[in-house]
Amino acid sequence: MHIHTASKSQLEAWSTELEADYADISQRGLKLDLTRGKPSAIQLDLANALDSDLGGDYRAPDGTDVRNYGGLDGLPDMKALGASMLEMPSENVLVGGNSSLTLMYQTIAFAWQLGVGESGTPWSQEPAVKFLCPVPGYDRHFAITQAFGIEMIPVPMTDDGPDMDVIECLVADDHAIKGIWCVPKYANPTGCIYSADTVSRMAKLGAVAADNFRILWDNAYAVHDLDEFQPLTSIFTHCERYGTQDSVIQFTSTSKVTFAGAGVAFMGASAANLNGFKQQLGLATIGPDKVNQLRHLRLIPDRSSLLQHMAQHAALLRPKFAAVLDALEAAFADSDLAEWTSPQGGYFVSFNSRPGLAREIVRLSGEAGGVLTPAGATYPGGLDEKDRNIRLAPSFPTQADIEVAMAVFVVCVKLASVRQALAAA
Amino acid sequence: MHIHTASKSQLEAWSTELEADYADISQRGLKLDLTRGKPSAIQLDLANALDSDLGGDYRAPDGTDVRNYGGLDGLPDMKALGASMLEMPSENVLVGGNSSLTLMYQTIAFAWQLGVGESGTPWSQEPAVKFLCPVPGYDRHFAITQAFGIEMIPVPMTDDGPDMDVIECLVADDHAIKGIWCVPKYANPTGCIYSADTVSRMAKLGAVAADNFRILWDNAYAVHDLDEFQPLTSIFTHCERYGTQDSVIQFTSTSKVTFAGAGVAFMGASAANLNGFKQQLGLATIGPDKVNQLRHLRLIPDRSSLLQHMAQHAALLRPKFAAVLDALEAAFADSDLAEWTSPQGGYFVSFNSRPGLAREIVRLSGEAGGVLTPAGATYPGGLDEKDRNIRLAPSFPTQADIEVAMAVFVVCVKLASVRQALAAA
Repeated sequence: MHIHTASKSQLEAWSTELEADYADISQRGLKLDLTRGKPSAIQLDLANALDSDLGGDYRAPDGTDVRNYGGLDGLPDMKALGASMLEMPSENVLVGGNSSLTLMYQTIAFAWQLGVGESGTPWSQEPAVKFLCPVPGYDRHFAITQAFGIEMIPVPMTDDGPDMDVIECLVADDHAIKGIWCVPKYANPTGCIYSADTVSRMAKLGAVAADNFRILWDNAYAVHDLDEFQPLTSIFTHCERYGTQDSVIQFTSTSKVTFAGAGVAFMGASAANLNGFKQQLGLATIGPDKVNQLRHLRLIPDRSSLLQHMAQHAALLRPKFAAVLDALEAAFADSDLAEWTSPQGGYFVSFNSRPGLAREIVRLSGEAGGVLTPAGATYPGGLDEKDRNIRLAPSFPTQADIEVAMAVFVVCVKLASVRQALAAA
Repeated sequence: MHIHTASKSQLEAWSTELEADYADISQRGLKLDLTRGKPSAIQLDLANALDSDLGGDYRAPDGTDVRNYGGLDGLPDMKALGASMLEMPSENVLVGGNSSLTLMYQTIAFAWQLGVGESGTPWSQEPAVKFLCPVPGYDRHFAITQAFGIEMIPVPMTDDGPDMDVIECLVADDHAIKGIWCVPKYANPTGCIYSADTVSRMAKLGAVAADNFRILWDNAYAVHDLDEFQPLTSIFTHCERYGTQDSVIQFTSTSKVTFAGAGVAFMGASAANLNGFKQQLGLATIGPDKVNQLRHLRLIPDRSSLLQHMAQHAALLRPKFAAVLDALEAAFADSDLAEWTSPQGGYFVSFNSRPGLAREIVRLSGEAGGVLTPAGATYPGGLDEKDRNIRLAPSFPTQADIEVAMAVFVVCVKLASVRQALAAA
């Protein structure tokens, strides 16, 4: 289907067919959901042994009684596991609670109130605070910066990560820019892995950016490969080389390794950043849940068992991603209606329609019982100027449901495209 | 021993004896600790069944898969358990993570940034922000207010709770006062229970205080009786009567019910307060650890089992409190050296020496191997102007260790008192 070159009569023929298809689908009372990046129940089952793994033995290898208060940093072995995910030394890692998003929120909240690191100017005392937001990106990142009234500057994504030419100019010119959101491996939603060159250039930003500029490096999908493990260049190693260790703060978690709502989050940063953070964190908590850390260590004691565990996730996710990509390929490979990403891991497929159609496609699909992530969600403030990006999340539904949801989606994309072309014809 | 009326030669005789006792104690290489209010290992053992209680069944009674994301409020049955502790309706309760201190910190942080409730002025935009701090009180409360640069005004405690005459005058006169810290049952450290009259007058403060004034009601020891259950008048019920529901925010947790570092925290507040809080909390987390909530519900499904569980704690704590109180009684009942509280629950005994001696007693005891909570810790900024309050925490050490630690303590109190009297003689 090539809309651009189609005749009006061809468009009308398509329209008749698609309106009938859509009417047919809409009558089926479907209830399908491709919205959020949640693991499915069978993925969660992989970690069911977390309950009872302790066998009543609540002592960590170092003798700590994990049931009691204390241990702001986390258990040493858990720090080591996080360090293996973030590819930085254990002593630079802090183990949090059940949510890396909370660590990110706290990073910004503490920076706002007290400054970053051990002595930076609080962001709240700056005349202006801006953040770079690679787009499309993760709505929850944008929601945090928005809540603090931080101005968000969209930066385009490429297949190698955010456009570094743009970023280098911006951070050097404008020292009101205090941070950038990054999902460096299997970026949410495009699924790209930042290239070695992108990571290296990111690591150099600290040399030209404002002193209290921080890269928030949300490595949520560090070990979430669909097939072979794909390496990500270590930003911290590069920062050490350039002397910019304070410019980057890393995050990851086991939310999509063990239990989404009951996993363990990690933060990795320079000693100065970590000390500043812990000073405030120590006021706000009696320490993380070390029992859950120990539970995790019994199930996943090291990186090798972590990767084995993730291979089981991959086996469950591969056919679901294939169902999405096969449907897109079959419908749109020979068309000018769409482009999409084919990630090797992570949780999303990023889909672009013809301009001006994303909201309409999401509406059509939703009304036919196929709920999609709201169009625009992948842009700061929900504003996708070209109105074309839709995030597809295949992890939660069954493969059968994905196939039906994609059949609905395909009809909606085609119908919206043909309607638009007819209106302009 | 009556210092005030003792002759110089009597003082000198005591001094000779006590210096010898102290020298003797100091040589023993003791390592004792009466500092923090931590449950002992045998108390924590009472909840060991938390591990494996699920039996691999991760469904809450309402069908929720507790392993996945979501559920900002917490599981309905867990809200009900918290509601029974806070004595307010379930729908007014939010279930947090492992730390009620975090909920308190967040309450202040959100109030600072966005205001309290649904529309109050952010505290950060007020010309001045002050907090009332009943003293002696809890150092971690004071540390939070201090971190936000909030001016702390000490208010004296009585056996019925904070001095309400003072408080009523202050909050009506000075609308820069935005809050007060309260531990209404078994106050930390005096152990008093706020009287019905105190609670009723607290509930009325909202009518005369600033609009964005909040009582932070940290009911940490709601069910932590050493013997019979002692009732605390429900502040929320009184607030409903006076139309001041927005003026109080309640907190409690299972930290000293199940596992200190891996319990479940609760917050209880009016719909307006809760909605405002949840709006910001929803940005900062993917939801609380519902698996741990379900685990808790399997062990402690309702208030009746909660009270049965707490009776086991009481049986373990009673002899430890008795060891402290017996030692104080034996040494100081017939003296002018000290006064102390005899709480019916909670985690502390509050001890007052003669003025100007607390720091010296803590130093002497520490050097003899008996570590005590730093003198002054129970006052805002660590400043006990009369230098006399010491918080004794008997829960963590063994009874045998408490007996030795108290023997050391008694010698240190007497020695410091005699030295002071001799210096003045």
